[in-house]
Amino acid sequence: MQLTTAFVALLELVGTFAFAISGAVVAVRHRLDLFGVLVLSFAAATAGGMMRDLLLGATPPVSLVDWRYLAVSLLAGLLTFFRHSAVERMHNPVQLFDAIGLGLFAVLGAGKALAAGLGPVGAVMLGVVTGVGGGIARDVLVAQIPHVLRRELYAVAALAGAGVVVSGDALGLPAAPVAVAGAVLCFTLRWLAIRRGWRLPVAGDSGAPD
Amino acid sequence: MQLTTAFVALLELVGTFAFAISGAVVAVRHRLDLFGVLVLSFAAATAGGMMRDLLLGATPPVSLVDWRYLAVSLLAGLLTFFRHSAVERMHNPVQLFDAIGLGLFAVLGAGKALAAGLGPVGAVMLGVVTGVGGGIARDVLVAQIPHVLRRELYAVAALAGAGVVVSGDALGLPAAPVAVAGAVLCFTLRWLAIRRGWRLPVAGDSGAPD
Amino acid sequence: MQLTTAFVALLELVGTFAFAISGAVVAVRHRLDLFGVLVLSFAAATAGGMMRDLLLGATPPVSLVDWRYLAVSLLAGLLTFFRHSAVERMHNPVQLFDAIGLGLFAVLGAGKALAAGLGPVGAVMLGVVTGVGGGIARDVLVAQIPHVLRRELYAVAALAGAGVVVSGDALGLPAAPVAVAGAVLCFTLRWLAIRRGWRLPVAGDSGAPD
Repeated sequence: MQLTTAFVALLELVGTFAFAISGAVVAVRHRLDLFGVLVLSFAAATAGGMMRDLLLGATPPVSLVDWRYLAVSLLAGLLTFFRHSAVERMHNPVQLFDAIGLGLFAVLGAGKALAAGLGPVGAVMLGVVTGVGGGIARDVLVAQIPHVLRRELYAVAALAGAGVVVSGDALGLPAAPVAVAGAVLCFTLRWLAIRRGWRLPVAGDSGAPD
Repeated sequence: MQLTTAFVALLELVGTFAFAISGAVVAVRHRLDLFGVLVLSFAAATAGGMMRDLLLGATPPVSLVDWRYLAVSLLAGLLTFFRHSAVERMHNPVQLFDAIGLGLFAVLGAGKALAAGLGPVGAVMLGVVTGVGGGIARDVLVAQIPHVLRRELYAVAALAGAGVVVSGDALGLPAAPVAVAGAVLCFTLRWLAIRRGWRLPVAGDSGAPD
Repeated sequence: MQLTTAFVALLELVGTFAFAISGAVVAVRHRLDLFGVLVLSFAAATAGGMMRDLLLGATPPVSLVDWRYLAVSLLAGLLTFFRHSAVERMHNPVQLFDAIGLGLFAVLGAGKALAAGLGPVGAVMLGVVTGVGGGIARDVLVAQIPHVLRRELYAVAALAGAGVVVSGDALGLPAAPVAVAGAVLCFTLRWLAIRRGWRLPVAGDSGAPD
């Protein structure tokens, strides 16, 4: 059990690192200065969890209390700033980490909401917020429409992962394997959407939506 | 009294629906995908109340606990997505619902702030936040300057409605009729502003600003 | 000691006034109406402190409870709206007040976070948030990339000021002189950066960054 907790913490920091890389890459492309790059790294990595904690009343948010979130974010930001051409080249590994982070954050966010006593609908929503909030903050800070609102099955994957956790809880299944199943489902959906170009319909497309 | 509560709850859901329609219409115009449309529906309908609840420390916000807010928002979003040309045509009914929602949200927000022990200035401000917060979130998410910051007497109407509630409370008047009066005043101001093109001055206009 | 508290409160209102002026100037330049100008004044002046209070769970935020924040913000907004050509001409005094406000807000924010029991890393971060949050909210509301993410040493100055407060606390030094030192350091860094055009590096500049 202790091993599981340590393993989850490790994966959460891996997700934090991946999201921070995505923030730093966006910042460098918009020619922000060094501080701006570090802010976007931290915002992309932690805004989802901060929104979850604020909405649950769990203040101060864990990312302000546990220094490792900041350290991992700064590391990712500095790496991207000083080695940005190398980071840009490894596009696929970044997407891979990002999909891992999405699965973990969605599942952990839904679980934390259930533990705080929220109902199933609210818990699924907070799982999605935890997964996609960082990307929304990142894009709003560079005055762009958030990619998550128009990219291939990004939030739907988070929804599926969070839904598995909440359904498992309602059915009284053990939490750990359910969480793993939810994260794997979210990751798989997101990864297939990237590889195969799956996307949601847009209103008014020539083809009938859905 | 029970009747009044049920009636207020009904009107609040009507306002939620109207604000959700406005969010979905903006999302379709910006060619967001289906998920993006649903997110903007929910954000436009609930962000004002969420900001109010966060600022009051009333967590988790009611829109995460009561599933009807989500259900009404999703219904409005799906309707707009699959019938957007019909929704675009009924421009005036949308503005009518939106003005009703503004009046109700401003009055209910101010009342909730007073009940939480906030002073008169803070309660008026939270009434305005409840009324206009959803429209601000909606526009920030599509990288636009919020319409409420430059449209005809939108926020001023919310200010008037919230002001009536806070004044009535200070004078010890009964809450229910005061709330109705505030909502009617807000609605009337907003509706007249739309019909007659009333607007606030902009600095540097050739005419002297009021 | 009473004198010190009154003096800090006075300076905090001076900082609020200066930040409110910056918000109003941006609003007038984007041709917002009178209400939009007042909203941006208040947002620029209080959003940093509101974010700090929300993240600490100190609700409702002080700027909703103490009416003087609103009064000072409205005064600055009205002044800018009706005398905007005069305000535009006194560019340097505005920057001076803004630098004073930055120093005070960064130091007071870090101090409030320490008093709430946050660790050193979190306290420095909340000092920075208090100092730069208003400028970020102001720029997001007019759909611009926040200046603080790409301007000369703005946030680094806040970081230095907050860092002095947290270091002094860790060393057990008396709070008042440490706070003054932090505010003076922040102000001096910011002021020198303006006068001499100091800036942080941007990734990919021809010269090696840093």
